[in-house]
Amino acid sequence: VQQYRITLLPGDGIGPEIMAVTVKVLEVVAQQEHIEFSFQEAPIGGAAIDATGVPLPDETLEMCRQSDAVLLAAIGGYKWDDLPANLRPEAGLLGLRAGLKLFANLRPAKILPQLLDASTLKPEVVNGVDIMVVRELTGGIYFGQPKGIFTTESGEKRGVNTMAYTESEIDRIGEVAFATAQKRGGKLCSVDKANVLEVSQLWRQRITELGKKYPDVELSHMYVDNAAMQLVRNPKQFDTIVTGNLFGDILSDAAAMLTGSIGMLPSASLGSDNPGVFEPVHGSAPDIAGQNKANPLAQVLSAAMMLRYGLNQPVAAEKLEAAVLQVLEQGDRTGDIMSEGKHLVGCQEMGDALIKVL
Amino acid sequence: VQQYRITLLPGDGIGPEIMAVTVKVLEVVAQQEHIEFSFQEAPIGGAAIDATGVPLPDETLEMCRQSDAVLLAAIGGYKWDDLPANLRPEAGLLGLRAGLKLFANLRPAKILPQLLDASTLKPEVVNGVDIMVVRELTGGIYFGQPKGIFTTESGEKRGVNTMAYTESEIDRIGEVAFATAQKRGGKLCSVDKANVLEVSQLWRQRITELGKKYPDVELSHMYVDNAAMQLVRNPKQFDTIVTGNLFGDILSDAAAMLTGSIGMLPSASLGSDNPGVFEPVHGSAPDIAGQNKANPLAQVLSAAMMLRYGLNQPVAAEKLEAAVLQVLEQGDRTGDIMSEGKHLVGCQEMGDALIKVL
Ligand SMILES: CC(C)[C@H](C(=O)O)[C@@H](O)C(=O)O
Ligand SMILES: CC(C)[C@H](C(=O)O)[C@@H](O)C(=O)O
Repeated sequence: VQQYRITLLPGDGIGPEIMAVTVKVLEVVAQQEHIEFSFQEAPIGGAAIDATGVPLPDETLEMCRQSDAVLLAAIGGYKWDDLPANLRPEAGLLGLRAGLKLFANLRPAKILPQLLDASTLKPEVVNGVDIMVVRELTGGIYFGQPKGIFTTESGEKRGVNTMAYTESEIDRIGEVAFATAQKRGGKLCSVDKANVLEVSQLWRQRITELGKKYPDVELSHMYVDNAAMQLVRNPKQFDTIVTGNLFGDILSDAAAMLTGSIGMLPSASLGSDNPGVFEPVHGSAPDIAGQNKANPLAQVLSAAMMLRYGLNQPVAAEKLEAAVLQVLEQGDRTGDIMSEGKHLVGCQEMGDALIKVL
Repeated sequence: VQQYRITLLPGDGIGPEIMAVTVKVLEVVAQQEHIEFSFQEAPIGGAAIDATGVPLPDETLEMCRQSDAVLLAAIGGYKWDDLPANLRPEAGLLGLRAGLKLFANLRPAKILPQLLDASTLKPEVVNGVDIMVVRELTGGIYFGQPKGIFTTESGEKRGVNTMAYTESEIDRIGEVAFATAQKRGGKLCSVDKANVLEVSQLWRQRITELGKKYPDVELSHMYVDNAAMQLVRNPKQFDTIVTGNLFGDILSDAAAMLTGSIGMLPSASLGSDNPGVFEPVHGSAPDIAGQNKANPLAQVLSAAMMLRYGLNQPVAAEKLEAAVLQVLEQGDRTGDIMSEGKHLVGCQEMGDALIKVL
């Protein structure tokens, strides 16, 4: 029996309910696959602010460090929107990424045939779309110094952030991206703004250089404005995308929305020496929190990513993914992905359905 | 008779041919509306590099300054892609924006009922979409200092760009945006990344403050990643969008592509003391240059924006716009917007058709 210590960070809004369902489902797969999980829970985001005054208590970060993987649900909510930036729920998330040095963020945007209709794009445009966005997560403008609001000589305020990448930061995420593309369709598109930004020029140079080590990966480069266009025009042209923190934030959300159902999309954040963090792409949806309406499937698929990328348990991962497809196939739908003729279920019932097919 | 001096910057690729057609069309409207244009032409971009070694010769900038408006076609091409950044065609465009202090860029993304099918989105999602993106154009990360590629203490290279806005820069573009929203649907959505970036926090504060002067405009704020999503999910929710230089670059292209026909989209770049620059959103399309295949309609619609925003000739502007709709209505299509049952025409024939309906 393989044993794993998993830190659960339910966070805010619908976080606790989708996490509860996911843990139940994980227990079932664990038994089948001779895995033993010991789960420990810690506060983050708004919940942590309410309990301790800060969005990422030291104990939470330390507990994450001591575990084999971290499963995060969702953070944030209107309630904490007026706090200063460094005390808001988002700061907890950024602190977790930095604290665990999670420099690689994998965000798949895959169209499920069962949910093809959910897309706002024409079926022939999105049918078969399967994109992996590899986003750099601990550098770029999210963390670059100097940053802040300063006063100029003329006495007015000036807001400043710095987009910066060093060669080693670029190489590190580039390696992950090439390796990912190799295991997928063998095509990597690096997105930058090298026609304007020096930081992008360095990015492009290094990715090009790195590409020589991966002759089996077909490398291309695209400007970020064009990439935003091409995702809408013809998303099937993309296989794996690699880009910086800010561009990745924007493009992975645009790519996610092509599917029409962000309640379905997981993500993985990986470092080299620390456990990875696995979380859904969607937010904390405070408006439907506690009403048993939330879609737990992105959280379950995040657990599958945890099994695959964090714990090297690909068989268990596939089982979870297959179960998700099967409940969709049999017509079970939460409100966010409901369509005519399907069977509306709540968050818990969706969990029960998964357990039943497992 | 009202007289105007217009500087024409045909630029590269398909630029010269779409410009030639547009000038012909403008001459016809001019005669009808008792306007007299004196056109003068100057090189920019790749054409200027070939002729003079730099992408924006001083004479070109000076000629622009001395005119009532500038009509620009398109710049760039593979041929100049390997030059250092400051000598590339794009540098000419950035130099023009900076040199004329064109801080406000207006980019409409409007679905034409005649071209509804061209969109990759479902007709019910995009039918009626009419968005104006107001992009800040002379600040932000495009121009912020410090920038460059530096060597760190440990001897590795570090690429750096600075995203910065002062209060007065924000106020200036904010005023344009509120005034624009007032004349349109009365809704303004300001896009930033205030949950992470200090520069966005200042942006949001100032736009909120400015909003108090415009109680008739309904102001909202959205994070840039969410905005990219919402453009795909439900573009009809947007009326006017205001945002910084980089976010505006990305979002205006995404919005443009919702229409499915960027060969149709014009833009205006305005300052306060200098003539405006009016140009299509599309690029120079070197692959079809000189083949009489280019779609001149975005250039013609850019001339209409010039008449409206640059020369205060709204009647002439409407005539041009109506002519464009009418040729589409009668079924004329260049290759990029061709669909079954329509009538395929070349660049020049499209111009002739416009002149005929005028
Ligand atoms: C909440 C926010 C700080 C975060 C980000 O910008 O990275 C989110 O948008 C994401 O993509 O995970
Ligand atoms: C060519 C490039 C420098 C330019 C920009 O980024 O502003 C273009 O993408 C645009 O949007 O006009």
